[in-house]
This record gives sequence, C-alpha cells and structure tokens, in this order.
Amino acid sequence: MSDLFSFALGASTRNTAGDILDTWYPLPLKEPQGAVAEAAQRIGNQDRAGPGEATLAADALEAGGQPIAASAYRMLAELDQPLTAVLLEADEDIASAPQAYLKLHLLSHRLALPNTLNLNGIFEHLPTVAWTSQGPVDPSAVPARLVAARAAGEHLTVYAVDKFPRMTDYVIPSGVRIADSSRVRLGAYVGDGTTVMHEGQINFNAGALGPNMVEGRISQGVVLGSHSDLGGSASTMGTLSGGGEIVISIGEQCLVGANAGCGIPLGDRCTIEAGLYITAGTVVQVLDESSTVVRTVKARDLAGQNDMLFIRHSQTGKVQCRTNRRAIELNVRLHAHN
Amino acid sequence: MSDLFSFALGASTRNTAGDILDTWYPLPLKEPQGAVAEAAQRIGNQDRAGPGEATLAADALEAGGQPIAASAYRMLAELDQPLTAVLLEADEDIASAPQAYLKLHLLSHRLALPNTLNLNGIFEHLPTVAWTSQGPVDPSAVPARLVAARAAGEHLTVYAVDKFPRMTDYVIPSGVRIADSSRVRLGAYVGDGTTVMHEGQINFNAGALGPNMVEGRISQGVVLGSHSDLGGSASTMGTLSGGGEIVISIGEQCLVGANAGCGIPLGDRCTIEAGLYITAGTVVQVLDESSTVVRTVKARDLAGQNDMLFIRHSQTGKVQCRTNRRAIELNVRLHAHN
Amino acid sequence: MSDLFSFALGASTRNTAGDILDTWYPLPLKEPQGAVAEAAQRIGNQDRAGPGEATLAADALEAGGQPIAASAYRMLAELDQPLTAVLLEADEDIASAPQAYLKLHLLSHRLALPNTLNLNGIFEHLPTVAWTSQGPVDPSAVPARLVAARAAGEHLTVYAVDKFPRMTDYVIPSGVRIADSSRVRLGAYVGDGTTVMHEGQINFNAGALGPNMVEGRISQGVVLGSHSDLGGSASTMGTLSGGGEIVISIGEQCLVGANAGCGIPLGDRCTIEAGLYITAGTVVQVLDESSTVVRTVKARDLAGQNDMLFIRHSQTGKVQCRTNRRAIELNVRLHAHN
Repeated sequence: MSDLFSFALGASTRNTAGDILDTWYPLPLKEPQGAVAEAAQRIGNQDRAGPGEATLAADALEAGGQPIAASAYRMLAELDQPLTAVLLEADEDIASAPQAYLKLHLLSHRLALPNTLNLNGIFEHLPTVAWTSQGPVDPSAVPARLVAARAAGEHLTVYAVDKFPRMTDYVIPSGVRIADSSRVRLGAYVGDGTTVMHEGQINFNAGALGPNMVEGRISQGVVLGSHSDLGGSASTMGTLSGGGEIVISIGEQCLVGANAGCGIPLGDRCTIEAGLYITAGTVVQVLDESSTVVRTVKARDLAGQNDMLFIRHSQTGKVQCRTNRRAIELNVRLHAHN
Repeated sequence: MSDLFSFALGASTRNTAGDILDTWYPLPLKEPQGAVAEAAQRIGNQDRAGPGEATLAADALEAGGQPIAASAYRMLAELDQPLTAVLLEADEDIASAPQAYLKLHLLSHRLALPNTLNLNGIFEHLPTVAWTSQGPVDPSAVPARLVAARAAGEHLTVYAVDKFPRMTDYVIPSGVRIADSSRVRLGAYVGDGTTVMHEGQINFNAGALGPNMVEGRISQGVVLGSHSDLGGSASTMGTLSGGGEIVISIGEQCLVGANAGCGIPLGDRCTIEAGLYITAGTVVQVLDESSTVVRTVKARDLAGQNDMLFIRHSQTGKVQCRTNRRAIELNVRLHAHN
Repeated sequence: MSDLFSFALGASTRNTAGDILDTWYPLPLKEPQGAVAEAAQRIGNQDRAGPGEATLAADALEAGGQPIAASAYRMLAELDQPLTAVLLEADEDIASAPQAYLKLHLLSHRLALPNTLNLNGIFEHLPTVAWTSQGPVDPSAVPARLVAARAAGEHLTVYAVDKFPRMTDYVIPSGVRIADSSRVRLGAYVGDGTTVMHEGQINFNAGALGPNMVEGRISQGVVLGSHSDLGGSASTMGTLSGGGEIVISIGEQCLVGANAGCGIPLGDRCTIEAGLYITAGTVVQVLDESSTVVRTVKARDLAGQNDMLFIRHSQTGKVQCRTNRRAIELNVRLHAHN
C-alpha cells in the first residue's frame, strides 16, 4: 500500500482569465507504488508542467512494467502545452477543479467504485462551462465566439452548459456501448459489457458494475449490480433529488421495468414491473410463494431483500411484493425488523 | 412606453435559393426608447444591412447608457456579412422567418414571458432546417454536403431536422445549467438559477421562471413557477399535444415527481407523487387534513388550487388529493365551483 | 421482378487495420431491373471500386429513366476514394459490415418495411464504433485522437460508442422532422409527415409509417401505423428487451399516452391512457359500450383488436378496456379466442 492516493498529469483548458475550465488526464494513477510514486512526488502539484515531467512519469511506469500507462504519459510529452500535475496524498476534500476532474476520471477509469471517494467540494470547485464544438468555453465568452464562427463561415454548437462534461470526451472504458453519450457524465462508472441505450443516463458517482443493459436513469450515488437491467425511462431515486438519506443500490440479476421507479435499495433477483414506482413510503402487501398474504409493510422495510417481485395488482390496485422464493426467511427477517 | 414593440439586427444563414434558414440576434431590443427607437426606425426592415446600421444602433445604445447592448451591436459591425434588420412596430402575426426568430429570441433572452407574445404564423414561417456541424443547411442539400465532407476527409453531423434550433447556439441566459442542450429549443424561457438535467426538455414558448430543477418535459405553453421541481421524465400536457384548451401552469414550490404527469394547472406548494399521472378527467377523492373524505371530483375541478398532494393509494388504488393545509377553504371553493 | 435483391455503391471509413467501420450509400437500389441490374452485376462486390464503376451505374440509371438516382452515383464518381460495392443476389444472412449497412440504408430509405428483411448476423458484423466529430473512429484510437486534437487547438467530441450510427448522418427521408437525431438509429423507418420529438426514439428495424407524432420509444421490431401518436416517454416492448416472442405493432389512429406503455399489438383506433402500462399479462376487465363488464381477460387475449380504450379506473384501481364501438363483435371474438 502506497502512501499516495492518486497522481495524474493532464491537459487543461483555460478561460481568458487563466482559470481552468477542464482537465483531461489520459491515464490517472491510483495508489502508485515504488519508483512511480517517487516520480509522482518529485513532480508534485504543478500548473505548468512540461514534457520533462511527462517523460519522468513515463520512464518510471515503463521501468515498473506498465508500458501501456507509460505510452499515455509519452503522448502528453509530445503535447506542446503546459500540463497540469495533481498529486493527492490522501482522499481529502476537493480543493480545485483539477482535483475534481481527477476524481471523476478515477471513477470512469474504473479505478474507484461509486460512493468510495471523498467528493466534498466538487460542486464548489467545478466551474460551469459551455461545452462546445470548439471545446470548453467560458459561458460569458460564447457570444463573441458565435460572431467569430459566423465570420469564419463556421458554426459553433453548444452541446451543454454544465459543470460536468460527457464522459466519452475524456474516457471510453473498455467493452461498453453508449448510444447517446451526452447522457453519461464524466464520473460515471460504466462496467465492462454494459450497454447504455439512448434513454439511459448515468450521473457522476453512479454506475453499473457490468454487464448491464441501462435504458433508464442511474442517479448520483446509485449502483446497479451485475446482470441487472434498468428498463426504458426507469427511475432510481438519488440522494440529490429527493431520495433522502437512503443510498439506493440495485443488486444482481434484477429487472426494473420500463417506466418503473425504485426508491429503496434492492437485493438480488428482484423485479419491479413495468410502470410501477416504488418509493420508500409505498405500502406493500407481502405474499409468500403460495400467494398467501404474509403482512403489509412500507417498502422501506423491504430494503435490500432478495427475490422480490413488485407489482400493482391490475384488478385491486394493491401494490404487492411476491417473493420469488425463500419467502419464509424473508418473513422472519421482516419480523426481526420490527 | 415606446411606440415600437421590438427591433433587432442579426446574421442570417441562407440556402442556395437565398431563402433565410435562421437568424441569430446577439441582443434583440424590446420596446426601445428615445434615440434608440429613432435609430431602429431609421434602420427599419432590411435584408442586407451592414456595418453602418450596426454602428448606428450601437452609438444610440451607448449614448442611451446601455454599453453592454452597444457592444453586441458593435460585434455585428465587424461581421463582414449582410445583416438582417427586423423592426416590429407592434406584436402582430409572424410574417417571415426573421420575425419568428426575433420572437423566439425575446423569449430566451427573458424579454418576454411564455404566452405573452403573438406567435400566430410561426409554424408556417419557420423553415425545416438540417441543423448540422456546419451550421443550418437546407435538408435537400445534405447529400451533396455529405459527399463534400467525405471528400475533404471531414465529417458532417446532422444534429436535428427541425423548425426550431437548440437555444444555446443562439442564447445562453445567465445563471443556468443545461446538461443536454439538444433538448431545449430556442424560444424556451429558462429562468435564473435553473438547472435542466439530461432528461429535462423545454419547448418554445414554455419555461421555468427560476430557480428550478427541470428533469422532465415542459410542453409548449407550460410555465413552471419559482422553486418548483419537475422530476425525471415527468410530463406536462401541452396544448399542442392533447392537453386541449387548458393552458397548464405549475405554481411555486411544487414537486411533480419522477415519471409523474400533470394535465391540470397547479397552484403553489402542490405535489404529485412519483409515477402518478393526473389528467383533467382523473376522478380524485379529496381528503382534508384529518384524512376525512371531503368529496370526489374530477381533477379539472381542482385546477389552480394550492397545497394539494396527489397520490394513488397503494392498497386501494384510489387517486387521492390530500390537502396539505387550508382544507376547509379548499372545500368551500370546491362547492363554489359547482 | 429482378433476380437481384439489392445493389449499392458507397463510401466506407476504415480503421488503421483496414477494417470497415461504416459505409454510406447515397442511394441504394432495391431489386434493380434491366440495364441497371446488368451494370450492378458487372460491378459486383468490390472493396476498392472507383469512378468507373460509379459512372457505369449512373449511366445505366440515367438510361433507365432514373435521373435523380443517377446523380447520386455521379456524386460518388467525383469522390476521390476507393468505393465499396455490395451486390446482394438474395436477402440472405448478413456476412459483412457493408452488407449490414446496406440493409439499414434500405430501411431508412423506405425501400423496405421493418420486419421484412433478413437481419440475421447484424450484431456480429457491425463493429462498435466511436462516432465522433471527426467521423467514425475505432474506440481504441480515441485517446490518441484526443491528444492530437488538443495539440491542434481543436476538440474531439464523441457522440456515441455504438454499433449503430444516427440515421440523419446517412439518410434524411423526405417530409420528416427529428428534434434530436441522436435518438434515431440508422435502420429506422420514418414515414413521410412524421415528427420525432426530443423524447422520441426509433431503433433500427422499427418505425412509423407516417404521418405520426413520435414522442416515445419505438423498440426494435415495432411499427406504428399511420395517424397514430406515441406520447412522451411512452414505451413499446421490443423483442430484444423483454417483450418475448410477440412482435408489437400499433395500428392506425391510435394514441399511446404520455408515460404509458404497450406490451401487446394494438389494432386501429386504440388508446392507452397517459401513465398506464399494459403488459401481455395485465389482467383487464372488458366493458362494452354501455359500461357493462363483459369479461375479464389477460391483455394478450386482446392483441390486435380495434377500438379499445385502456384505462386504470382512478377509484378502484382496476385496469379496464372500454370498447369505443363494436363491443359485441369484440365480445364474440373474445369468446372465439377461448
């Protein structure tokens, strides 16, 4: 275990006042060891690093048996621009835009799982940027850019005005398909074998462990377990948007149906039928395997249980949880919760 | 009060036949006064205005104590292209594409609220345009452009084929965040402090007064009051899409939950729970503060009331309106409606 | 009837290994006849066709009285690049990327309806591509491109990482509006007079016969009949995403409401109210014109019927099918199904 938490060298865009709008790190390092850690410490935090620093890091990586990482740093050495070096000794509160970008990169490079990084300060330190066809631009500079583009017979398109850019302009993780990358923020964790369809959306510090089919919205803090599907327009409640203190997670082999919603953590092998929204406060009738009503509880009392099938009975309007199996065990646990 | 309704000078794109595809106005003027109004009248309506006209307007604005507006017109003076001048003496029916663009700009520059402008004729006068990485293109010219781009080793991307462009390529209002600008049309009113998330959408002549969190769809004609949230995929019924004659508005401090829908105007401090769609014809059981059923009405009879909480009871299937407070007053009003 | 199924000449993009990433065909030919078929057979399948082949096809088309098609092939003759020629004698399994692209083009050019082409092998033969502002790029080459773009003071945007590109970069069918083209895949069939709003989405081998208003998701294999509307975020179940073996289609003059869903084929003049999701297994109470309960069935037993109105009763929670008219006939058919 290294003493260092993370190090990276990248390229930043600045506004005319010199403030950093974004930083792209081709390959951030998590807990670098040995000679790589020494090189990182020698480089330290710098606003205006250059080819020398990039080469120093590349050489250490190559000597340490990491040729792919080394080549990423050699690419930077060839970039004729001042580089941004960030060294995080520990996972402390975010204190600058480059630090925020480094943590977002760690998530999207799958070097850290959602909810495992200290993201305090991220909103304060990420500037709001106009993400354009000419790259990151200070929003106040857009009108002048529009004139300049028209004067040159060109066209400036503003894809977003936001604190977070799309992930794919910074990181394309292996083995993924993303049908509309404007919906996946940098800082999303997109696991190997995952397809994000046009209606899928993944916030920063949220993700799918892979393989998954994501056609709904994964809110900040929410994690989807392996082999689970999130149907079209399905909603997961985030802590930022009304989900309160409970962090929602969805286990393995679950299916949240199209236009459904989930406001409680689900265990494994759970299903919410298409069109049904389960909030923490939804009153749910629990049925065992023989369709006998076991008890009636609030959905929050079922948080994290496995093998649940949620439906709204189409002739009585009752929201029901039918246990796929192990109903008795579930029942026992329910009693234990009270 | 000036005699003029609006004036603006802008840059247009034309197809090969010379028809205008779009007009961008860096800063339209609403009800210009004094010397600015005189300059506007002197310039009048022109297809091929030039630096002289732009400078005339800029000088008048500067003399009138509007240096920021003046600088926008000076930018145009430096643009070596024929300019489009539009003078609207009154808010009459739209008679040309530049007039349509001017009214859309007035809305997005927050110089006019939704539903306050005469937009008759807008669909007839807005051409359908291919919005591309090379700017506005006549759809029939796209194949030749695709060949030319491939021949040059470049790539043409067609973002949309529509009458309305995205707002952010024309206007970025202050204090907003828009996560995916392809979903906010020019003509949207996006109030200060508003965040439009990836799933948010705002049509022309519609908007959020700000500050707001918009994660759902604001249909044409719909206005969201201050401090109200529209949850992910939440729907508001527009007059163009089945909402009929009622213009939907949502008051202040409301919450329309994720995957919910609203087909009636809401007053202040109203909530529709996640996943529930209230249409004008939904039969609703009204409960007072002590959970006593007060009466059963169609949702349209509750239009515009304050302090309503709409849920679908999860064990009876009944759609209910629970009055947060002032239940008696509400009850009285209900009787009055009958 | 020709012996040939299809022929096209187009321009391909390749990765550095020479593998084809995409092929754009300005105008594919379906069942070419006479001299055009002869020219197609003379050209055959080629990786590196040139102006000679394009001119040969153009001349045959012109002689055959197809001047517009001829001009599309003449455009290709002027493109100084090796061209891809694909000749399909019959509609056999897809065996290459250019063949897959040809079939997708046939659908989007409205030369074939969804579910009429043999698409076996399409997923195996379509490569996953990074769709960027510089055109199609091998995902593994993106980091080097990002560096090169930053070095040149430019910006590379990655719109998607997917097997399917957006349709509008290849085909813009006549008479359509598409508010956000990132949501309509090549291979979509978009009928004349159709508007696809921002929330609309159309997969490959799926579509709307036109005219239609599409504000929801048309899944793979689903077809929307003329004069039908799909409301905002409305879901149609596809065979790829849980709909099982039933191919969903929606007849003419139907309305699937906002946030609603459809998991059965609908006949003509059917409505599903906003917010209601009908799956094949939903138990439905069928009412005749006089509101008398006729019987209770699973929705799959109503598949393909006309004149149905589906609602969830807002005071009992019962999902009901109210027959707009011809209730007796419907009733008879229902009995016949059992």
